[in-house]
Amino acid sequence: MTQANLADLAALEELYRNNLLQDVIPFWERHSLDRECGGYFSCLDRAGEVFDTDKFLWLQGRQVWTFSMLYRQVEPRPGWLEIARHGAEFLKRHGRDSEGNWYFSLTRQGQPLIQPYNWFTDCFAAMAFGQYALAAGDLEARDIALQTWRNLLRRRDNPKGKYTKAVPGTRPLKSLDMPMILINVALELEGVVPQTELDPVVEDAIQEIMSHFYEHKRQMTWDNVAPDGSHPDCYEGRVIIPGHGIEAMWFMMEAERRRRCRPEIIDKAVQAIINLVQYGWDPEYSGIFYYLDTQGHPPEQLQWDQKLWWVHVETLVALAMAWSMTGRQDCREWFGKVHKWTWARFPDPQHGEWFGYLNRRGERLFDLKGGKWKGCYHLPRALYLCAREFERMRMKPQAPSKH
Amino acid sequence: MTQANLADLAALEELYRNNLLQDVIPFWERHSLDRECGGYFSCLDRAGEVFDTDKFLWLQGRQVWTFSMLYRQVEPRPGWLEIARHGAEFLKRHGRDSEGNWYFSLTRQGQPLIQPYNWFTDCFAAMAFGQYALAAGDLEARDIALQTWRNLLRRRDNPKGKYTKAVPGTRPLKSLDMPMILINVALELEGVVPQTELDPVVEDAIQEIMSHFYEHKRQMTWDNVAPDGSHPDCYEGRVIIPGHGIEAMWFMMEAERRRRCRPEIIDKAVQAIINLVQYGWDPEYSGIFYYLDTQGHPPEQLQWDQKLWWVHVETLVALAMAWSMTGRQDCREWFGKVHKWTWARFPDPQHGEWFGYLNRRGERLFDLKGGKWKGCYHLPRALYLCAREFERMRMKPQAPSKH
Repeated sequence: MTQANLADLAALEELYRNNLLQDVIPFWERHSLDRECGGYFSCLDRAGEVFDTDKFLWLQGRQVWTFSMLYRQVEPRPGWLEIARHGAEFLKRHGRDSEGNWYFSLTRQGQPLIQPYNWFTDCFAAMAFGQYALAAGDLEARDIALQTWRNLLRRRDNPKGKYTKAVPGTRPLKSLDMPMILINVALELEGVVPQTELDPVVEDAIQEIMSHFYEHKRQMTWDNVAPDGSHPDCYEGRVIIPGHGIEAMWFMMEAERRRRCRPEIIDKAVQAIINLVQYGWDPEYSGIFYYLDTQGHPPEQLQWDQKLWWVHVETLVALAMAWSMTGRQDCREWFGKVHKWTWARFPDPQHGEWFGYLNRRGERLFDLKGGKWKGCYHLPRALYLCAREFERMRMKPQAPSKH
Repeated sequence: MTQANLADLAALEELYRNNLLQDVIPFWERHSLDRECGGYFSCLDRAGEVFDTDKFLWLQGRQVWTFSMLYRQVEPRPGWLEIARHGAEFLKRHGRDSEGNWYFSLTRQGQPLIQPYNWFTDCFAAMAFGQYALAAGDLEARDIALQTWRNLLRRRDNPKGKYTKAVPGTRPLKSLDMPMILINVALELEGVVPQTELDPVVEDAIQEIMSHFYEHKRQMTWDNVAPDGSHPDCYEGRVIIPGHGIEAMWFMMEAERRRRCRPEIIDKAVQAIINLVQYGWDPEYSGIFYYLDTQGHPPEQLQWDQKLWWVHVETLVALAMAWSMTGRQDCREWFGKVHKWTWARFPDPQHGEWFGYLNRRGERLFDLKGGKWKGCYHLPRALYLCAREFERMRMKPQAPSKH
């Protein structure tokens, strides 16, 4: 194995850090603040103009998290804390129903538009208020984070409540996204929620993923399985969302790194990342597909062949982390391949930030920089985390080599 | 204006009728019958192999309708009635909950999978049992059609029931698809439900479409409007689904043809068809887009630029009908343009039936012939209706010319 040399790592670190601090974050600082009504605009066109003013709570919470995280991890800039506060105050005022569940969306002014049908909104709200509480020392925010965490655990066995469309009992399925996000939320709530409450949730989630969603034969994750881990032959049972599995694997690796560092978990996660990238890679036009069917049938999602920013940047995080933690040459090579394809297509040097949605050929499907599902989150988090891994590797260049 | 000559019309009629009777219907006869468990397989690959066995009730009902309609309108072949019966019996046995609402999907064996959250399922069930009752003279089917019709009218003010995600009152919206489908269902229930029950529903729906969904300035339909017909500036408020508007217009024209033949309705419908086709036409690769945003912003649907079979065949029906009813040269020209693009890309002479999903360039996104949303319905109905219009024009070649 050839070790990456220090100059390469320093150049990568600089590229990711500069893109984060001089391009992506300034774009959101300039364009996303709703100074009249509070909260953030997330629907921004190529140049940053607002094209829709609804407040989608996944993205409101995620932006609070991003600016709080930057304040804590990168530099305590008062302006960043102020932006986090701007979103947190709007969410405190308007975000919850009378039982503390988080609405899915609000009007610009904060009137509730879409009911709290979506359990993941609560996950992003918990992360937002957890990080903001730590950044701002805000006790009310800490209480909201704690209440939201406990409420989402209470709701986890029936996350859709009355909105559940599946008939109970006929074909029970569970989804990777639930244990996956619980690991992520728990990591973000360290220091806010007692560690004794977090640790069992993380351990349960890791065990569930490794025993039910991880297939040992193919060394890959599935997205939906029966409660016993078997694979019902139906659209949902067959689908693989490579970006999901890859993201789940790095959440798990990060949890291990902070806790027990079990090599049997880390090695399997790394192998799953490599296998999912290989499996998801488009042999014709390159890039990673959005949805695939394990049996090669058509997935139900018409957007199956599109190339999305979050899939590619989460893959970069996972590969950088896998490379850094294991020194494996295949992780480094795949990182290089995905890095090259991604950086050639998604960034927009002209107006800043990155495009989000490419077609199979890697051409732009939309010019938008933010929308109903793309906000100030995956990209800045990935740029920060990749830069962090390059820095770690620079500081400890002789990573153990296994291959 | 040049009248289409009789030979052209006869050739078109033959093409559409032969494709229906010698290609499309035989494909479903050969591949879709579940002889073991009843009902139909709708998930069929390019060659007709079953790739998923779930029973999606939109498509079960629609196939019962298609074979009943063929039996009544084309030829009373016992085999067609038997195929309709095969699906109707499965639906009678397994399709409804205890309150007579239709499940969205069942397992292959008929166990309920997805709750009756979807009001349109009831619409297709009503059409299915209405046509089947008329074809088979089946009194139980007639009762089911009548009950389902009355039940769907009862549910129409709150069609999603407890599954409604919108917070009441914040931003009420109504959708074109509801009055549109009510016209369609009512036309299919003539002879089953008393005309005195049907007529007011049709007239209300036409009035609602013309006063709230039809914009007089642009002479086009919108898909979602406020209760007063105004246009909230949000994703749903801005979206235009050209295929929907075009289909709604031909439903309305058919209703007028059977009733009052009001020129002010028919002329506006024809103009809206032309305007929607022009508006939806892809200037770069041709074909009609799936979703557009009236303000040119990105629609929320990632599949916005795809070219779907149903959009194109419903457009052919609408243009053939508009051409036949008005003799307008622009209708004839647009028919020719859409016909040429559609027939060059969707049919599969090798294995029969048509492909359903093309990307923006008109290349195949999937090879499937049927899936969760594509079954034995839009295409055979369109082929039948187009052939019928060509026959009408042949019989009455001197259609009134307006332009």
